[in-house]
Amino acid sequence: MVLLALMQANSAVLDVEANCAAVDDAARRAAVAGAAVLLTPELFPVGYAPLRVRAELDPDRLPAIRRTLAGIARRNSIALVYSLPAVTGEGLWQITSTLVDREGSELLNYAKVHLFGVEEREAFNAAAEPPAVVDFLGFRTSMVICYDVEFPESVRAAAARGAELLLVPTALSQGFESVPQILLRARALESQLTVAYANHSGVEEGCVFLGGSVIAGPDGALLAAAGTAPALLFAEVGAAAARDAREAVPYLRERRPEVYRAWEVDGPEAAAAAEGSSTY
Amino acid sequence: MVLLALMQANSAVLDVEANCAAVDDAARRAAVAGAAVLLTPELFPVGYAPLRVRAELDPDRLPAIRRTLAGIARRNSIALVYSLPAVTGEGLWQITSTLVDREGSELLNYAKVHLFGVEEREAFNAAAEPPAVVDFLGFRTSMVICYDVEFPESVRAAAARGAELLLVPTALSQGFESVPQILLRARALESQLTVAYANHSGVEEGCVFLGGSVIAGPDGALLAAAGTAPALLFAEVGAAAARDAREAVPYLRERRPEVYRAWEVDGPEAAAAAEGSSTY
Repeated sequence: MVLLALMQANSAVLDVEANCAAVDDAARRAAVAGAAVLLTPELFPVGYAPLRVRAELDPDRLPAIRRTLAGIARRNSIALVYSLPAVTGEGLWQITSTLVDREGSELLNYAKVHLFGVEEREAFNAAAEPPAVVDFLGFRTSMVICYDVEFPESVRAAAARGAELLLVPTALSQGFESVPQILLRARALESQLTVAYANHSGVEEGCVFLGGSVIAGPDGALLAAAGTAPALLFAEVGAAAARDAREAVPYLRERRPEVYRAWEVDGPEAAAAAEGSSTY
Repeated sequence: MVLLALMQANSAVLDVEANCAAVDDAARRAAVAGAAVLLTPELFPVGYAPLRVRAELDPDRLPAIRRTLAGIARRNSIALVYSLPAVTGEGLWQITSTLVDREGSELLNYAKVHLFGVEEREAFNAAAEPPAVVDFLGFRTSMVICYDVEFPESVRAAAARGAELLLVPTALSQGFESVPQILLRARALESQLTVAYANHSGVEEGCVFLGGSVIAGPDGALLAAAGTAPALLFAEVGAAAARDAREAVPYLRERRPEVYRAWEVDGPEAAAAAEGSSTY
């Protein structure tokens, strides 16, 4: 079993130094408690403010911010998931997450596929790569970001690649309690993996965040859940739980991908149907 | 708004006459209460006992049973969803559901795609057609059966075809409370449709059923939920709720089917990954 730690906190928009200090403090406390990994919220080091971040963050600063975060992992001897903007070789801005090990070495990167809302879509470009999987702490581990996890297709893609642990930085507003309380537990249960979902709390750039971070087991049970205030959550997790659940009810083996592919509805027909204007 | 009724009850294995009498009684009570449609559990008229039903039910009786059920709808002036075995032209036995209108005319048929457990797979063949959608009571309406709804892919296929109301006969054992309490609510929320899930109660052929039938709205809220005892559940439902939810958070428009298709992992690689033996 491994102790997983999750940081729910308020970020100061574009005050990278203060935010990294908050991550460092959480990493220190999590490591002292015996945690092997600390999960932090979406875009936490820069704050969740898509338009301001895009307009005011000099992307040349990003390598140094990444080095600072790797140093926090190394200095506290704890693996770390952080989320930052990244600029691709083609100049596209993406929302990404990175898993570094306790030495500060990068194990896994992910770029957000489903952007939420007008501001995110104005500031960033949606990625299209599936969530990759890496062996980590005895788990096959993967990541998605925020809105991605609300789509069962994203978590299925991770599970189909063998994921047993899914680490999800998020930035979820007040009013969406059903996302952590229903959707997150369903994602864990239907794909039989452990899911940790780390949110902001408080207000950033006028947005009131829900808090409500959760860690759910492969049977859909809540292992830990935060309120609205800043919190450091812990849960003991192990890959055996995923394997046991998959043995008991083999959802992943009993999927029928070839049938689903034949069912796929595309193009104008799907768009019309989704808007209820089709002529069925 | 429309009043939807759901019958949770114990079925007597292969006592078709008694089971149809129970449906008739529920239809009468539901119609008196003002309900426009009654949803009944999986294989209710014959009982949930796959091997005995396959071995002992003469399929030549099925047309008469269907006429009896259509007569119940017509006589009580209420639409009805019933579930029966059906034998295809190729001699394959399937688990099906049928929606008849208040005149007893068939509006929609569905055959179960995901069979659950050894006995179902021994007694029946899995179908491969997607859930169809029909206009009914102001809703674009679809059906899936039991284990199907535990797979997000099945409900997505209905939603991609425009479904706003999903009617689900089921036969769920004790011990699986998380299916109605978490997965069903997630299906409703993630595809923004009303879902009604009608289960057996009590013991049939040694199987102890959960009861726990639910009706969930397009925001994932429980509109009605049964305990373990026989029950007739009611909920006022309307298609505007689905449309409002889809306006607020456009999950269906913001899906990325072309990306998901590119992600699909097939064949031995997927099987190995699902069992955790891949070499990623």
